[in-house]
Amino acid sequence: MPLTPEQQAEIESERATPRQTLRAVSPGMEARLYTAHPVLDHGFVRVIDYMGDDAAICQAARVSYGKGTRSVQNDEGLIRYLMRHWHSTPFEMCEVKFHVKLPVFVARQWIRHRTANVNEYSARYSILDREFYIPRAEHLAAQSTQNNQGRGEVLQGAEAQRVLDLLREDAMRSYDHYESMLSQDGQQGLARELARMNLPANIYTQWYWKVDLHNLLHFLRLRADSHAQYEIRAYADLMCEIVADWVPAAFAAFRDYRMDAVSLSAQGAEALRRRLAGQVVTQENSGMGAREWREFVEAWGE
Amino acid sequence: MPLTPEQQAEIESERATPRQTLRAVSPGMEARLYTAHPVLDHGFVRVIDYMGDDAAICQAARVSYGKGTRSVQNDEGLIRYLMRHWHSTPFEMCEVKFHVKLPVFVARQWIRHRTANVNEYSARYSILDREFYIPRAEHLAAQSTQNNQGRGEVLQGAEAQRVLDLLREDAMRSYDHYESMLSQDGQQGLARELARMNLPANIYTQWYWKVDLHNLLHFLRLRADSHAQYEIRAYADLMCEIVADWVPAAFAAFRDYRMDAVSLSAQGAEALRRRLAGQVVTQENSGMGAREWREFVEAWGE
Amino acid sequence: MPLTPEQQAEIESERATPRQTLRAVSPGMEARLYTAHPVLDHGFVRVIDYMGDDAAICQAARVSYGKGTRSVQNDEGLIRYLMRHWHSTPFEMCEVKFHVKLPVFVARQWIRHRTANVNEYSARYSILDREFYIPRAEHLAAQSTQNNQGRGEVLQGAEAQRVLDLLREDAMRSYDHYESMLSQDGQQGLARELARMNLPANIYTQWYWKVDLHNLLHFLRLRADSHAQYEIRAYADLMCEIVADWVPAAFAAFRDYRMDAVSLSAQGAEALRRRLAGQVVTQENSGMGAREWREFVEAWGE
Amino acid sequence: MPLTPEQQAEIESERATPRQTLRAVSPGMEARLYTAHPVLDHGFVRVIDYMGDDAAICQAARVSYGKGTRSVQNDEGLIRYLMRHWHSTPFEMCEVKFHVKLPVFVARQWIRHRTANVNEYSARYSILDREFYIPRAEHLAAQSTQNNQGRGEVLQGAEAQRVLDLLREDAMRSYDHYESMLSQDGQQGLARELARMNLPANIYTQWYWKVDLHNLLHFLRLRADSHAQYEIRAYADLMCEIVADWVPAAFAAFRDYRMDAVSLSAQGAEALRRRLAGQVVTQENSGMGAREWREFVEAWGE
Repeated sequence: MPLTPEQQAEIESERATPRQTLRAVSPGMEARLYTAHPVLDHGFVRVIDYMGDDAAICQAARVSYGKGTRSVQNDEGLIRYLMRHWHSTPFEMCEVKFHVKLPVFVARQWIRHRTANVNEYSARYSILDREFYIPRAEHLAAQSTQNNQGRGEVLQGAEAQRVLDLLREDAMRSYDHYESMLSQDGQQGLARELARMNLPANIYTQWYWKVDLHNLLHFLRLRADSHAQYEIRAYADLMCEIVADWVPAAFAAFRDYRMDAVSLSAQGAEALRRRLAGQVVTQENSGMGAREWREFVEAWGE
Repeated sequence: MPLTPEQQAEIESERATPRQTLRAVSPGMEARLYTAHPVLDHGFVRVIDYMGDDAAICQAARVSYGKGTRSVQNDEGLIRYLMRHWHSTPFEMCEVKFHVKLPVFVARQWIRHRTANVNEYSARYSILDREFYIPRAEHLAAQSTQNNQGRGEVLQGAEAQRVLDLLREDAMRSYDHYESMLSQDGQQGLARELARMNLPANIYTQWYWKVDLHNLLHFLRLRADSHAQYEIRAYADLMCEIVADWVPAAFAAFRDYRMDAVSLSAQGAEALRRRLAGQVVTQENSGMGAREWREFVEAWGE
Repeated sequence: MPLTPEQQAEIESERATPRQTLRAVSPGMEARLYTAHPVLDHGFVRVIDYMGDDAAICQAARVSYGKGTRSVQNDEGLIRYLMRHWHSTPFEMCEVKFHVKLPVFVARQWIRHRTANVNEYSARYSILDREFYIPRAEHLAAQSTQNNQGRGEVLQGAEAQRVLDLLREDAMRSYDHYESMLSQDGQQGLARELARMNLPANIYTQWYWKVDLHNLLHFLRLRADSHAQYEIRAYADLMCEIVADWVPAAFAAFRDYRMDAVSLSAQGAEALRRRLAGQVVTQENSGMGAREWREFVEAWGE
Repeated sequence: MPLTPEQQAEIESERATPRQTLRAVSPGMEARLYTAHPVLDHGFVRVIDYMGDDAAICQAARVSYGKGTRSVQNDEGLIRYLMRHWHSTPFEMCEVKFHVKLPVFVARQWIRHRTANVNEYSARYSILDREFYIPRAEHLAAQSTQNNQGRGEVLQGAEAQRVLDLLREDAMRSYDHYESMLSQDGQQGLARELARMNLPANIYTQWYWKVDLHNLLHFLRLRADSHAQYEIRAYADLMCEIVADWVPAAFAAFRDYRMDAVSLSAQGAEALRRRLAGQVVTQENSGMGAREWREFVEAWGE
C-alpha cells in the first residue's frame, strides 16, 4: 500500500496532536484513527472520525440526561437485549467515517448499500493513479461448477500465469493510453471525464464513506460472509476488527445474534422440533424444496 | 424548563471531565455540549455529540489524507462554492446528535423529516411527566383570514383568557385521569400503552435526534422560516445559533445561498430581466397566475 | 367506520370504471382497490394504487426484456430463493399506496418506519372530525406485571367501566373545547394549528402511505407480531391479508422465512446441536444469560 | 441499439395485450410502455411500469376519498402551488420503473442518487455482452481549460482519430481477453466475478431503476443540466420527454420552478434590487467573491 511520504507525514501530524473534548471517547478507536490499514495489494481502510461508544447506545435507548451508564454489566445486558429483539434505533446513534481505497469493481458492489454518505475521488476532475488490483495466486479461482455466482478451485500453472499476464498487461496498456489521450503535449488532450472510460474495473479509486453503526453492521453481515466475493470480504473482515475495538459490547452481540446466528424457516424449525422428539425427517415429509433441504442438511446433518 | 437537581448534576458531571481525542474538535460546539438550552415553556435542545467541523467538509470534498485545510480562506471559498452549486455530499460528512424536549404536536411535524435517526421516550414503557405546552399571551394567535394554514392577529382579552383556561384545565384533567387509570391502588391499573391515549397533543415528549449537516440545514431552511408554525420555529431558530457556532463558514454560506436566497421562476426571472431593460411588466404580460403574481409583487414591488 | 354517502359514492364511482392498461395487473389486488376495509372502531385501510405482481419480482431479478415469467413454478422457486437469501432488491420493485384512517397514537408508532412516502391530513389547514378510538371491552388490558412494555389481563367490572367513561368523556369535552376555541361566532377564533393541541392521542387522523414491498414486509414483520401493540397489529394483520391477495408467492415466502421463521443465536444453535446429539443443555453450560435462556426454553422446551 | 429479435418479440408481445384495471391510467405513459428508446450508441431507456398521474398528486395532497380531481384547471393550479412552495410529499406519490442500458461510467454517476431502487445485471453471475460506448466525433471533447470538471472544444483530425482507435482497440482486446480467461475449453476457466475486472468503464450494463416522481425530478434537475457530463445528460433529456408525457402538469411546473428557475443569493438579490432602483452595482460593492460575481454577470449582465 504505497502512501507517499507526504501522505504519511499528514497522517502522522494528525496523530501527533491530541485535543480536549467533552464528547464520548472510545480508546480502542482512538488507537485506530487515521492509520491506513492495508487491504488487498494497494487498498486501505482508515478511520477518519467516529461518534459514540457502547455507552452512547444505552444512553439513547434510555433517552437519558447523563452518560446513560449505570454499570458496564448493565449496559452489556441492555445491548444484547436490543440486538436480540431487533431494536435497531439505538445502534443508529453511533456513526463512523472511513477513508477507503478500493478497486472500482469492489466500489460498485459497496455502493449498493444506500444508507451511507459518500464522497468519491472524481475522475471527471482529477487524474487517477496507475494502481490496479492484481489477485494473489491463491485468490485466482476458477468459476464454480455448482453456483453461477461463486468460485471453484484455484487456477494452476500455465492458466494462472496467463490470467495474471493478461490482467497486468491490459491494465498497463489501458493506463498508457489513458495518459496519452489526456496528454496536452502537442495536442489538445481529451477531457478527463471521457478518457477515464478506457480504464478497467480493477483500477483503484478512493472515497470517504460515513455510516451509522446499525447500517454498518448490516453491511458487514452481508459482506463479511462466505457468500460475498473475496475482494469485498477482505475489507469487511478488517472493518469487523475495527468495530470490535470501537464498540466491544455491540460487536459481541452482533456476532452472537447476527453473524453466527442461524435462521430457521417455518419448515426448518418444525423439522428440528420433530427430530428433537425422536422422529425421522426426510425431504419428502419436511415440506421443503430440494434446494432448501440441501441447505438444511448442510447445516444440521442428515 | 424544570430539570431536576439530579439531571442538572448529571449534565454538570459530563461537562466537568474533558478527555483527550485525536478527532476534529469544534471549540464553538464544545461550549454548547450537554447544556440544556430552553425553548418554549418546558422544552429544551441539548447537543449530545457531534462529528466534524468546517475543515472536515473540505477534507471530504478533496478526499484528502490530512486535515484537508490549506488555509481558512481557501476553505471558506470552497464551502461557498459547494453550497452555491448544490454539491451536498461534503456537508453530509458532519453529524450532530441532539436531545430535544418538545410538545407532541411539534414532534409530529418534526418527524416528517425522515433522513435522521430517532430514539423517542416510550409511553408504552414509561409514564410521561405532567408537563404541557401553554402558549404565552403574545403567541395566542387567531386563525388567519387569508391563509388556511396560518395565524392572524393575537387574541385579546376575554377570548385569550378563555383559551388559556381551557388549555390548562383540559391538560390537568386529562393528566389526572391518566394517572387514575394507571393507578394500581385498589385496582389492576390500565396498561401504559393504552392510558397514554387520553393525553392531549401539547404534552411534552423527548427524543434523541441525530442528523447529518446537509439534512439538518434542509430541516432548518423549512422550519426556521416565516411559513413554519411558531412553535417549531422556536426550536429551529435556536438550532441555527448552535450550527453557527459549530461550523461558522458552512452556516454563513447556508444563510447567503439558502435562507436569505431568492428563487425566481422562469417567468419571474424573465419579468426582472424586462424590468432591468426598462419595460413595464404586469400580471397580464408576465405569464404568471394571480397568486404567483401577488407573491412576486410582495418580493419585488409593483 | 362511518364513510359519508358522498365518500361512498366517490369510491363506487372509481370502482365502476375499468380502464385499459398494458401494465402488470394483479387480479387479487384489483378486487381490493378503493374499498375501505374497516379496522378498530372508526379506522380503515384502502388500497389506492399498486405497481407490480409476483412476476414483476422475477422480471427485475432477471433484468429481463419481457414478462420475466418462464413458468409459475419457476417463479415461485426463485421468489423463495430470493427471500431465503435476503436478496431484497427485487422485492423493492413492487410498490403500493394505501389510504389509512388511524388514531394518532398508532400513527406515531407507524411513522417511525421511515422508508415510505406519507401525506397526512393537515390539522394546521383543516378541522379534524369528532372521531376517537375507544377500545372494545376485550382490549381493555391491565399493565403487564412482567413486561414494562406489555399488557396483562383484561380489566373487569367497575374499573373497566370507569376507564371507558373517562376516555369517552375526556374525548368529547376536549373536542367541545376545540370547537369552541375555533369558533368565529362573536370572537376571532383561535388558529387551527394551535387549537388542535387540545385533542387527545386517540383522535383519528388520515394519511396516504406509499411503500415498496420489501419495506412493507419489514413493517409487517415487526407490527403483525405478538410484541406489537394490539391497535397497530389490527392494521398490520389486515394488510397481511391484502398482500397475500396481491403477491401470493412473495407473501407465502415471507410467512415461511420471516413471520414463522425462528432465529437462533450462536449459543442457541449450539444448544440445539448438542441436544440433537443427545446431550443435556442447561443455562449454566449454554453460555446464555438468564433472560435469553428463558426465551430459549419458551421456544424449544426444557 | 441492437435488441435481438427475441427481445423485440418479447416487447411486442407485452404491448399487444391490454388488460383491465381500476387504477389511474396515464395515456401518454401507456404509449411509452416497454418500447426501448435509444440513447447513445447502444443504450436505451424503457418504461416498465408506473403508478399515478397528475390527478394522483392532487388526490394525495388533499388526502381525498375519490379521484381528487375537481377540474383540470384546479389541479394545475394546485400542482404549481405545491412545486413553488417545495411541498414535495405529494410528488412522491407517483412512481416509475425503468429498464436502462448504459455504460458503466454513466452508471457510476447515476447510482450516487440513493433514493431509488435498483436491480443491476450481475457480472458475478452472468457474462457481459461485447458492447462498448464509443463517442461520436462531435462529442469527442478536449479538457476544458477553465473548468477542471468540464469539456472544451471538439478534438480534430488525427488526434480525434487516434482517440477513437485507442478506445475501440482497447475495448475489443479487453473483451477478447475476458472471453479467453472465462473459456473452459481446455482449461478450468476464471471465475466470472474475477474476469470482469479486465473490462473498461465504457462497457454497457443494464438495470431496473425505480424511483418516485419527486426524486426523479431532483435527479433530472441535476443531470439534464449543462454542468452534467454529456453522456448522462443524454439519458436525462430523454427521461424529461417521458415525464412530460406521463404527468404534463407536474412537468410544466418543474420546468418553470426548477429547471428554468434562477436562484439568487442574498447578495445577488440585493444587487438586483439596487439595480432596479437605478444604482450601479460592482463586484466591490456587491459583497460577492470574484467567482460568484463572474457567475452573476453571466446571468444578469454587467
